[in-house]
Amino acid sequence: MSETVKLTLDEVRALSLSILTKSGFGPEHAAAIADTLTTCQTDDCQSHGLFRLFMCHDTMKSGKVDGHAAPVLKPSNNAIVRVDANAGMSLLAFEKALPLLIEKTRANGIAAMAINRCFHFSALWPEVERLSSVGLAAMAMVPSHSWVAPAGGTRGSLGTNPLAFSWPRSGKDPFTFDFATSAFARGEIELYRRAGKPLPEGVAIDKYGNPTTDPKAAMDGAMLTFGSYKGSALSIMIELLAGPLIDDLTSLESMEFAQGAGGAPYHGEIILAFDPAQFSGGRVSDNDARAERLFADITDQGARLPSQRRFAARARNTERGYVEIAKTLHDDLRALAEDVRAV
Amino acid sequence: MSETVKLTLDEVRALSLSILTKSGFGPEHAAAIADTLTTCQTDDCQSHGLFRLFMCHDTMKSGKVDGHAAPVLKPSNNAIVRVDANAGMSLLAFEKALPLLIEKTRANGIAAMAINRCFHFSALWPEVERLSSVGLAAMAMVPSHSWVAPAGGTRGSLGTNPLAFSWPRSGKDPFTFDFATSAFARGEIELYRRAGKPLPEGVAIDKYGNPTTDPKAAMDGAMLTFGSYKGSALSIMIELLAGPLIDDLTSLESMEFAQGAGGAPYHGEIILAFDPAQFSGGRVSDNDARAERLFADITDQGARLPSQRRFAARARNTERGYVEIAKTLHDDLRALAEDVRAV
Repeated sequence: MSETVKLTLDEVRALSLSILTKSGFGPEHAAAIADTLTTCQTDDCQSHGLFRLFMCHDTMKSGKVDGHAAPVLKPSNNAIVRVDANAGMSLLAFEKALPLLIEKTRANGIAAMAINRCFHFSALWPEVERLSSVGLAAMAMVPSHSWVAPAGGTRGSLGTNPLAFSWPRSGKDPFTFDFATSAFARGEIELYRRAGKPLPEGVAIDKYGNPTTDPKAAMDGAMLTFGSYKGSALSIMIELLAGPLIDDLTSLESMEFAQGAGGAPYHGEIILAFDPAQFSGGRVSDNDARAERLFADITDQGARLPSQRRFAARARNTERGYVEIAKTLHDDLRALAEDVRAV
Repeated sequence: MSETVKLTLDEVRALSLSILTKSGFGPEHAAAIADTLTTCQTDDCQSHGLFRLFMCHDTMKSGKVDGHAAPVLKPSNNAIVRVDANAGMSLLAFEKALPLLIEKTRANGIAAMAINRCFHFSALWPEVERLSSVGLAAMAMVPSHSWVAPAGGTRGSLGTNPLAFSWPRSGKDPFTFDFATSAFARGEIELYRRAGKPLPEGVAIDKYGNPTTDPKAAMDGAMLTFGSYKGSALSIMIELLAGPLIDDLTSLESMEFAQGAGGAPYHGEIILAFDPAQFSGGRVSDNDARAERLFADITDQGARLPSQRRFAARARNTERGYVEIAKTLHDDLRALAEDVRAV
C-alpha cells in the first residue's frame, strides 16, 4: 500500500455510520452495516470494508432499497428461520434472525436461516464466524448477478455464488473459508482493466463465448467458474439452495430485477448451522482433538489454512487499536461524505 | 468397449447377490449392496457397478467388516438421524435410516443423517437421488483415505472426499452431481499407470512433494485437489462435517485404521436433506419453474447439466431391459464367483 491513513476502530465505525445515515439508512440498518464494515476492516479485508460504503450509497441512489425496512421473522415450528428483509439490506435481517437460528440449531442439531428479499453486498465470513464464535459450524451461500457462464457455456447464467464455511476451534481462530465459485472476483477483472494487464487464461470468455484474456472483453462477456465442471456444478447448487429452495431469485432473475442499476444485487441468502454437541452425541472435545490433528497435519507440511492472513491482521489491528487504509480511499470517502451532505 | 456381454437387470442383481452371499455378507447386507450395484450398472456407471464386487470381496477378506452387522438407529428428539453401522457396510445402514431421515426432513424442513462406523465403497448419487425421488433436495459427503495433499502441501492429509447433490425436478430426471474433490479419481491414476500414459499436469505430486506426471510416482506421493486452494478448502470442510462433526474418523485416521489392508475404507458419512415445501412456505411449483428456467438457460447455450450421460443410459437400459458389460469384467466376475465357492 502506498500512502495510508490510520483510523481507530471507533473512527471506522463512526465514519461508516455517518455516511450510511446521510445516505438514507435508518439507525438500525446503519448500525448493522457499520458493524460488519468495521469487522471486515479490522481484518484488513479491504474489498469488503469501508470500500463498500460506495456500494451502499449507490444502492440507495438506485432507489430500490428501503433504508428503514423492518425485517420480519416468520413464525415457524420447524428448524428453519425465515426472515423477510422487506427490500432492506441483508445485514439487519441476519442480525435479527441470528438468536433464533442459534436456538433452533441447539434444539434440533441442524437448522437453517433463509433471508428473503434482501439487498446483499457483504462478505459471508463475518456471518459464519458469528456462529462458530458460539461453538456451531456454519455454511452460507448467496447468488448474485448472472455474470458467470456454466462449464461448456457461452454466456452468463450463474452468479459469482460464494460459499463460506466456519468451524469452531476451542481457544483459537476458527477454520473459515469464503470464496466465490467464479474463477475471479468481478472486482479483480476491473483492477486488471484499470492496470491495462491481461487476465490469466481460463477465467473469462468474450461476448461470443470465446476464451479471452482481455479484461474489457471479459466484462462484456462472462466469467468462468473455478474448477471447470465441478466448480460449475457447485455454483448451480448454490443457485438452487439460495434461490428456488427458499422462494427467492436466481442470479438471472436478480440481474433482470436490477435493470442495469448499480449497487448491491437483490436476492436471498441461506445459512446452515450445525451443533457439534448434538451431532457427536456430546463427544465434542474428543472430536475437536481429531479436527486439530487434521489441521496440524496440514500446517506441519507447510500448507496454510484459509483466512490466516486475515486472522493475523485482526490480532495486529485489535492489539494496536487502529487500521490503515489507503489515503486515496480515505480521500474518496471524505468526498463521498461531503457529496452526500450536499444532497 | 470391445467385446461385451448382455445381462438383464435381474441377472445383474442375481450375480451380485451370489458373489456377496458367498463372500460372507448376510442376506440384508447382500440385498442392500446388490440393489445399489444394480442401480449403478443400470446407469452404465461402470466404476461403481458390478466392478465393485471385487472391493466388497476384498473388504470381507481383509477381515474387519462384519457381513452380518445390524445397523442401530439411535433414538433422537432432534433433526439428526444417527445410525451406527456397527462395522458393517454403509448401504444397509443408509437403507434402515432413510425413512426416518425423510420423516424428519418433512417435519423440520432440514435434517441430517449421520452414518457411523461403516465401510464405504459406493457412489453417493444413488443416495441423494433416493431423496430427490421423493421431492427433497439432498447433499452427501464422505472422507476416504488420506491420499490427497492440501493446497500448498507436500503429502496426503485429505481424502478424495466426494460431494454429491441432488435436486428434484418434477417429471424429469433430477439435477444431480457427485464428484471427488481430488483432481483425479485414484482409479484413474491406476488406469494411466497400466496404459503407460503420463498424467495431466496439476493432478499429483511425488513423495518429495514435487509436481509429477508419472502415475507410479503419483501413487507413491499424493493427489492434488481440484480447483487449487478453493477445492482444498472444500475438501477440508468435508473432512470436518463427515468426520469430527459426527464423531467419526478423518481420512488420516481411516488410513491408519486400515493398516494397509485393501478393501473399502472405514469411516462415517453425512447426508443433509432439505424440504422445498417447508423452505419455500409451500410455493414449490413457482420455485420449480424458477429452477427450470435456470436449467433451460444453461442447456440453451449448449452447456450440459451433470449426469446427463448417466440418465440417457438409464433410459436406454431400462427400456431394453439389459445392460452391457465388458466381457473381461464378466470373465473376472465368474472367476471370482468360482474362487469364492472354492474357499
